[in-house]
Amino acid sequence: MAFLNDNYLKLKAGYLFPEIGRRVKAFCDAHPGPAQRLIRCGIGDVTEPLPAAVITALHQAVDELAVRETFKGYGPEQGYEWLRHAIAQNDYRDHGCDVADDEVFVSDGSKCDCGNILDILGANNKIAISDPVYPVYVDTNVMAGHTGEASEAGAYARLVYLPCRPANGFIPAPPRRHVDVIYLCSPNNPTGAAATREQLAAWVQYAREHQALILFDAAYEAYITEPGIPHSIYELPGARECAIEFRSCSKNGGFTGVRCAFTIVPKTLNAQTRTGEFKPLHPLWLRRMTTKFNGVSYPVQRAAEALYSPAGKEQVAALIRHYLGNAAVLRQGARQAGLKVFGGVNAPYIWVGTPKGLTSWQTFDKILNEANVVITPGSGFGSQGEGYFRISAFNSRANAEEVARRLQALK
Amino acid sequence: MAFLNDNYLKLKAGYLFPEIGRRVKAFCDAHPGPAQRLIRCGIGDVTEPLPAAVITALHQAVDELAVRETFKGYGPEQGYEWLRHAIAQNDYRDHGCDVADDEVFVSDGSKCDCGNILDILGANNKIAISDPVYPVYVDTNVMAGHTGEASEAGAYARLVYLPCRPANGFIPAPPRRHVDVIYLCSPNNPTGAAATREQLAAWVQYAREHQALILFDAAYEAYITEPGIPHSIYELPGARECAIEFRSCSKNGGFTGVRCAFTIVPKTLNAQTRTGEFKPLHPLWLRRMTTKFNGVSYPVQRAAEALYSPAGKEQVAALIRHYLGNAAVLRQGARQAGLKVFGGVNAPYIWVGTPKGLTSWQTFDKILNEANVVITPGSGFGSQGEGYFRISAFNSRANAEEVARRLQALK
Repeated sequence: MAFLNDNYLKLKAGYLFPEIGRRVKAFCDAHPGPAQRLIRCGIGDVTEPLPAAVITALHQAVDELAVRETFKGYGPEQGYEWLRHAIAQNDYRDHGCDVADDEVFVSDGSKCDCGNILDILGANNKIAISDPVYPVYVDTNVMAGHTGEASEAGAYARLVYLPCRPANGFIPAPPRRHVDVIYLCSPNNPTGAAATREQLAAWVQYAREHQALILFDAAYEAYITEPGIPHSIYELPGARECAIEFRSCSKNGGFTGVRCAFTIVPKTLNAQTRTGEFKPLHPLWLRRMTTKFNGVSYPVQRAAEALYSPAGKEQVAALIRHYLGNAAVLRQGARQAGLKVFGGVNAPYIWVGTPKGLTSWQTFDKILNEANVVITPGSGFGSQGEGYFRISAFNSRANAEEVARRLQALK
Repeated sequence: MAFLNDNYLKLKAGYLFPEIGRRVKAFCDAHPGPAQRLIRCGIGDVTEPLPAAVITALHQAVDELAVRETFKGYGPEQGYEWLRHAIAQNDYRDHGCDVADDEVFVSDGSKCDCGNILDILGANNKIAISDPVYPVYVDTNVMAGHTGEASEAGAYARLVYLPCRPANGFIPAPPRRHVDVIYLCSPNNPTGAAATREQLAAWVQYAREHQALILFDAAYEAYITEPGIPHSIYELPGARECAIEFRSCSKNGGFTGVRCAFTIVPKTLNAQTRTGEFKPLHPLWLRRMTTKFNGVSYPVQRAAEALYSPAGKEQVAALIRHYLGNAAVLRQGARQAGLKVFGGVNAPYIWVGTPKGLTSWQTFDKILNEANVVITPGSGFGSQGEGYFRISAFNSRANAEEVARRLQALK
């Protein structure tokens, strides 16, 4: 009989958000009245319509597909040149970062890329992951066989966890021990913390000293408001020799349902073979993408291109202002409710200490029952997330204001 | 230093189609005149515009995304229920195949699914692959470490190759030896052969006796014209216990640039753990998709749904008739040129014996230079493809007729 991948059996019961969905459904079934006033601040999904420039680009691209002369079949798996150029120019070179067009790989999602990147890495890397963290980093390493079994607390053997707590401003410092691969996410999901230039410089220095690889997830880059916070790892000298960067159109352009993201793999980035030879990772990722992927939908690539037009940029900026305005309202509401509040300044997430004596799932249930608001329990992001919960700022302003009021009315 | 995946270094120089692209570019640069009359019958990419029903659905879905009340963010990773239902009902239950809605997993491509399916399988399977074959099956197994090194002829150690030659009608019989996983593609890319019910029944019987898994690629199912040829592996009793089926909207709806496909994983399909326990594969694939994928673009899913509307079905049938009409023209042209011709009846591919004494790459160069037509050399699909070339019927009728004329004019 065919063999299955036993590593999947190590995974804990379920991805966080399905469990939230289950509890919300049970609540709504039991309480149809309060269910009417439910406000969802759980999953980090955008709520506002696509920018007008994107809508126009989508319609135009669809019309091209209706006519033989302008019809497009297979495109380049790594993305059309015009989109790779727009990304490299606008997101990198215009900000002084040295990224070539052909170092940009367009994909259908950062979640996919964060998982798929393991395809080109060896099974023998020592891997460091922040805690709390976006669950996909951990789960994809479990699936790939890079971990042992999970402990009672949900920590997997062989992973190096980097605790993120108030004492370090939720940004971990490099460890004393050696690791080969490091996941960093800034601005952070779930804590909303953004790494300073000094903090990232320390990581780049560590990576170069240890010849380690940084997997830098910058999906929330557009939310940075404070000056001096790097938007890209490539703002740091030497990062082209030690880092891959993931970015997404989901949280700036509102593409969570449209699906477009991209990954930067510098041609100057090497890793080693089992026998200790240095080889560039760029040709491996190119081969991975051309063999296991067939490119992003043509209209979607045109839609992503429109985000870089003058009108698109203005419309994206307005969306970000809207969500960050919500974040400010929610921060104030949670603070006035007497809770400890972090994040929400350079990120669309507010990270909040639980009311005294309550675990994060107990807080989830309390806020669901009393305020009819869905939040995300911090422990779902790792054991160091216990004692916190995340509020997403993706909502209408009216809902954000109502959530702020309800938090203050909690008993 | 971080370790890379050494298995990538076993891959042969490049994917077939980039090499074709390189030779075509060199030819066009050197012969700008003949380049003007170049006709491409190489890569299997559709040429006709999207069906009108699809265009309408795309525009409507885009308009939904422009308005807050109808905006869609993240959808279910495995596809919207309405699309999974349309697929299970129209492609399976209406044809007497027992497939439940939640056994359908919507994705952005069969190429992706064929590669990604290895994520949930163990590293210790003995794998059988037809030769010649769609290169992705072999390459993704190499990348996953399921093979040894390649021989001079390009055959990888540890894979079991199943030769497809005229003597077996290009459909391999089950081997005498034991294998755990078998790739079957019917109608076949590249040979155009379609397996009969008896041939598939023998494979299902083999798989059940050996508790093996069949990976059944039915991407060209819509091109079957002969009665009695199974459109789905699930037409065979017992297949729900031993087979996963891949299908695509690329070659029926013309979605090569739009990106939508789906995979059927029956809930009755088991595989074994290292310790010999039987476990269902369905929850593993569900976990893989929810963790490493974020669903297909919403407008694209609406577009796929439109393929199942009465108008969509008629428009797809017209596209298939068009391409199969080309195939008939090309078959006749190649035959009148004195070549041995196979396929093209239940598939958009014609598989042609090379002119006497020429290898398939020599034939590629000859047809490129003399006829200014791009075909695909058979040896690019495996060592048993030597002595053949593939002509794609994806073209305008005028081009198909012109290619038929030029083949007859070959010296």
